Amino acid sequence: MNFCSNCGHPLTYLTPPGDDRCRYCCESCGVVHYQNPTMVVGCIPEIKDKILLCRRAIEPSYGKWTLPAGYLENGETLASGAKREAFEEARAEVEILAPYALYDICYVNQVYLMFRAHLKDNNFRAGEESLEVKLFAEKDIPWEEIAFRVINQTLIKFYNDRQTGRYPFYMGNIAKLQ
Amino acid sequence: MNFCSNCGHPLTYLTPPGDDRCRYCCESCGVVHYQNPTMVVGCIPEIKDKILLCRRAIEPSYGKWTLPAGYLENGETLASGAKREAFEEARAEVEILAPYALYDICYVNQVYLMFRAHLKDNNFRAGEESLEVKLFAEKDIPWEEIAFRVINQTLIKFYNDRQTGRYPFYMGNIAKLQ
Repeated sequence: MNFCSNCGHPLTYLTPPGDDRCRYCCESCGVVHYQNPTMVVGCIPEIKDKILLCRRAIEPSYGKWTLPAGYLENGETLASGAKREAFEEARAEVEILAPYALYDICYVNQVYLMFRAHLKDNNFRAGEESLEVKLFAEKDIPWEEIAFRVINQTLIKFYNDRQTGRYPFYMGNIAKLQ
Repeated sequence: MNFCSNCGHPLTYLTPPGDDRCRYCCESCGVVHYQNPTMVVGCIPEIKDKILLCRRAIEPSYGKWTLPAGYLENGETLASGAKREAFEEARAEVEILAPYALYDICYVNQVYLMFRAHLKDNNFRAGEESLEVKLFAEKDIPWEEIAFRVINQTLIKFYNDRQTGRYPFYMGNIAKLQ
């Protein structure tokens, strides 16, 4: 953040009147440029006793396995964002069932929302951001090769809940590793 | 969005290579300026059989009643954001209990998360963005004077659930009025 996106003037980092923290402010046109956390939405696409994972074709965690997820876009619902990501990353058609887990990841200013989802059929293939996409039974999950801790936690909770068949909504926190 | 916040060059609105929608792009330094929904966090501060509402001292909905809520800031958890807003708007100390309702409000690019909360004591007073703050029993809720539909829906659900004493997590959608 160097220049005002409204008028192009160089920005100043200061506490605006009545505020309690520093913001990027334009002393020319007066606009305050707030910065806020970004939402990531994804799902656990399930079909029979298997779930769909994607092997990442992009950094970070190139080559590691993940659930389809990505940034929520303006104008879409949380569920439609999660559905879109499943299609983009795995060309998979999913039915979003219910919100399942919500995570604070403060140190990267992200909030993650993962849904449970029903994978409609086996017509999936790698999207542009995936090297491959594949169905896994629980015993075959590549636990040592999962891309992100938030995905790892979601999968652990999912398989725990699966033993009881009850999937209560969960809030978690992914803290920065020391 | 007129100028690049990185280098100050005028922006172009186009679809970047490999993307599927228009973004504000800098053809000088190459930065793509993504725009994403903002999260609003709030709570229902409850003490005995009453809840705390704030009468807004700012637009929109100046003079109407609302639950304490506001934009999630970088670096804070969803729960700590909701707690901070209760303090800012009502100088109220709350204990955040559980996530309660999550709303898509696509037409303003917002996601709302409301928590249930315990108001710790009666030491509250209007913060700078409130004209007054007050405890209400259900029979006294000023239903005709609630600031936003998302707050109205949250209160309706809360009082419905209160009859059973069970407060299941809920996902809602606030659509644009035609």
